[in-house]
Amino acid sequence: MSWGPARAEFPVLDRLAYLNAGTNGPLARSTHEAIAAQERSDVESGRGGPAYFERALALRDEVRTKLAAVVGVEPGVMSLATSTTNGCNIVLSGLQLEPSDEVLTTDGEHFGLLGALAASTAQVQVALVRELPPEESLQVLLDAITPATKLIALSHVCWMSGNRYPVEELRRESGLPVLVDGAQSAGAIPVDAAAVDFYAFSCQKWLCGPDVTGGLVVVDPERLGIAAPSYLSQESYDDVGFVARPGAARFDPGWTPPPSLAGLSAALDLAPEGRFERAVQMADRCQELIAERFEVVTAPGQATLVSFRPDEDPEDLVKRLYEHGVVVRHVPKLGWIRVSCGWWTTEEDLARLLGAL
Amino acid sequence: MSWGPARAEFPVLDRLAYLNAGTNGPLARSTHEAIAAQERSDVESGRGGPAYFERALALRDEVRTKLAAVVGVEPGVMSLATSTTNGCNIVLSGLQLEPSDEVLTTDGEHFGLLGALAASTAQVQVALVRELPPEESLQVLLDAITPATKLIALSHVCWMSGNRYPVEELRRESGLPVLVDGAQSAGAIPVDAAAVDFYAFSCQKWLCGPDVTGGLVVVDPERLGIAAPSYLSQESYDDVGFVARPGAARFDPGWTPPPSLAGLSAALDLAPEGRFERAVQMADRCQELIAERFEVVTAPGQATLVSFRPDEDPEDLVKRLYEHGVVVRHVPKLGWIRVSCGWWTTEEDLARLLGAL
Repeated sequence: MSWGPARAEFPVLDRLAYLNAGTNGPLARSTHEAIAAQERSDVESGRGGPAYFERALALRDEVRTKLAAVVGVEPGVMSLATSTTNGCNIVLSGLQLEPSDEVLTTDGEHFGLLGALAASTAQVQVALVRELPPEESLQVLLDAITPATKLIALSHVCWMSGNRYPVEELRRESGLPVLVDGAQSAGAIPVDAAAVDFYAFSCQKWLCGPDVTGGLVVVDPERLGIAAPSYLSQESYDDVGFVARPGAARFDPGWTPPPSLAGLSAALDLAPEGRFERAVQMADRCQELIAERFEVVTAPGQATLVSFRPDEDPEDLVKRLYEHGVVVRHVPKLGWIRVSCGWWTTEEDLARLLGAL
Repeated sequence: MSWGPARAEFPVLDRLAYLNAGTNGPLARSTHEAIAAQERSDVESGRGGPAYFERALALRDEVRTKLAAVVGVEPGVMSLATSTTNGCNIVLSGLQLEPSDEVLTTDGEHFGLLGALAASTAQVQVALVRELPPEESLQVLLDAITPATKLIALSHVCWMSGNRYPVEELRRESGLPVLVDGAQSAGAIPVDAAAVDFYAFSCQKWLCGPDVTGGLVVVDPERLGIAAPSYLSQESYDDVGFVARPGAARFDPGWTPPPSLAGLSAALDLAPEGRFERAVQMADRCQELIAERFEVVTAPGQATLVSFRPDEDPEDLVKRLYEHGVVVRHVPKLGWIRVSCGWWTTEEDLARLLGAL
């Protein structure tokens, strides 16, 4: 599908300048129809019987395969984690770091990662890189590594500033395991998750999937502990132990609603050719327009988020913009406004934003 | 609502003798409508803007309050866990037991609990009680306690045999913390979760809620560690730590889809007066009818599950029954057939089962 007809699939884009895919992406008509069809079946035919479970398991395989393709890996290393948060928790709880271990992170992380780090017993070291472009942040991060560093855990794209972090270079140059929070990258920019060790992402943002869907890449599944097993983690068990399923499916945190799987599968089919190029183009254009009147935080040529410093109270501004049909968010504590541009974003959306600002 | 009109809300019951609520309950028309209405809103108005988040958070409060009422506790001790499995994992990973600690469980547990036990470092001791009535199992369980026992973790109603376990008496007589797997009890029989320490349950079974909804009661939330924090766990945070929200909401594993919350809230409103009495009556009647031709496993006067030994291959039998419009399940390894009776079950449903057997 080319981008014009694909864009026309999103009803919300007819009503609003919807510029907040960094929180939740727009939902397409075809995604909604796939969800609704499965729900009708569940209500009318019941959530039981052999055909129901066969379909649910087939949908899991289908979605796993499609998600793997999105981030450039084999399906065998993809777990159907429910969110970036869930993925980060699976990794940190599975690694079982010691209190003497260190994890290196940044000052630009979401609580989805920070919470998992806080719950681990390891020491958290914070590199101050959120406002640096990736070519400068690499050295700052490498310099912060100590002999106790056992993991580097950071975003691919900073949810606050919109800047990229050099995750692949970090992996290569440090030789240390790298956990990537891919919430603002999977579906937004090209991703090669196999270049790091763990890649956690959400599907309801840039992939326009249903709520509470996500993925976690574990490149070497056998080497990570299973801290929170579900029925789907095992291929056999007795009262005191279990044999894990092969591959990263062992980390699947539980059942996914079949309507959500059907909707996600439809959403993943929608993405048009050239979507990454178009999304970055629109973000660049957004940056250009905002820079005429405000101080932009985001370095040039990053991903699909553009953050800037408003000259009024950011919370009030977000509300005022919403009243004008423009959906953006503010970044708490820093007082920035963050604009999310997708392949579906148009010049008209940006004009509406600028007009309302 | 009286039980007749309430029963008429379930489309699947017009088509099938749906006797598998122990896996997934039937979905009501009103539940479906509440889900669909929120989904339409999400598609048309977007999953963003102040009103969206206000509604989502209000739905969380509403559902938390209703779930608390279902199991007889205050909302402050209820976490919106996604499933019984998720609840068990939250408890076991939060307790951080030592390798020298023991957990006492039974030979009648689901992997949702056994997986969490296996992932903890504690030793698992198994009492053989699944075919005993509760008045006999209590002493067997008490006798299996050792000085190293730090937790008793077991079902309220055994998913295999349908027998009740004496969870409240165990708590009282042992003085030890008790984690209850309430998958086959919450919504099926009266529950007083405050009589134990941790009560994990699913909502898609006996409460007829949407997929992947559940609850976890943590009677003393401050004393359990938060092993897998979500954004909803904290009331403030910085790069290296966080202050937990008050109450058991701190264990909320993440966002719940607002359509699921709306659907669950509607489902919880449907339950008619006298539902527990009626459900047990129907289970007793089911047991009586089956006992005329088969050996029943379930002790008399238990809960809403009835298990029996068929005289043919159980897997084949489940398929054959399904072809006759009768939905039940078999219990792997044991070769039993399990029939789930709800307040919505009728004499006609049971006649259809017996006719097809």
